[in-house]
Amino acid sequence: MTTFSIRLAVRDDIAAIVAMLADDALGATRESPDDLTPYRSAYERLESDPNQLLVVADRGGEVVGTLQLTIIPGLSRRGSTRSVIEGVRIHRSTRGQGLGAQLIEWAVDESRRQGCQLVQLTSDSARTEAHRFYERLGFTGSHVGFKLQL
Amino acid sequence: MTTFSIRLAVRDDIAAIVAMLADDALGATRESPDDLTPYRSAYERLESDPNQLLVVADRGGEVVGTLQLTIIPGLSRRGSTRSVIEGVRIHRSTRGQGLGAQLIEWAVDESRRQGCQLVQLTSDSARTEAHRFYERLGFTGSHVGFKLQL
Repeated sequence: MTTFSIRLAVRDDIAAIVAMLADDALGATRESPDDLTPYRSAYERLESDPNQLLVVADRGGEVVGTLQLTIIPGLSRRGSTRSVIEGVRIHRSTRGQGLGAQLIEWAVDESRRQGCQLVQLTSDSARTEAHRFYERLGFTGSHVGFKLQL
Repeated sequence: MTTFSIRLAVRDDIAAIVAMLADDALGATRESPDDLTPYRSAYERLESDPNQLLVVADRGGEVVGTLQLTIIPGLSRRGSTRSVIEGVRIHRSTRGQGLGAQLIEWAVDESRRQGCQLVQLTSDSARTEAHRFYERLGFTGSHVGFKLQL
């Protein structure tokens, strides 16, 4: 069984993360892996915010997975803190090896450690395989996710 | 036409906000308006985080609406910043007067002002009236929202 270590992303991981974001049916049209400038600025913001955890899965020094976990305090549900998972990607070379589940389990454990009572994420309605994956991990697709592009 | 002012919530607004969170088919089972202690702790966390904007709609000194806007930087979509809207409530006395739309429009304008490229929210699948409301405001229900209780 392959062993992955999950760790906070560093600045040198940006190119590998962006390559994974772009190597995706939906991401291909939305990313610009040839120009990392906007990603570097975004990374600075993430790094300076203690409620943002951008992580990578590392296999022998190679970045093969990523996700972003955001911690959101709030008043509702008796002052519950929730977490939001965004930007989950597994490198093409590494799919089907259980890394997706390991990354989500990391996010759930970290959320619990940070006192969250709820973990949430949205997944494009077209990603039906992803939906089955999240259901297997115990998530319930109880909500409709609305987006407005600005 | 009634005029509402939308402003950041202050500590003295907590009881009014919690009363609105609890006065709701789903919220009734999840909130404890008789014990504000957990809400006060959560408010302290919100207040100390510049990416959290808890606002109320105020009509002549009376709190009649609320929502929470969270600003989330990220790498995906060329380093886009997105915002998330949570905890939208309108006081029972004030429904049908356009305040919901005014609050969401405030959130959209503020998101734009903060450089966000995307505004998102999830709404329980049971809230079909809310779904039509968000669609009228230009949102697209393109995603499935998954939740995991911890």
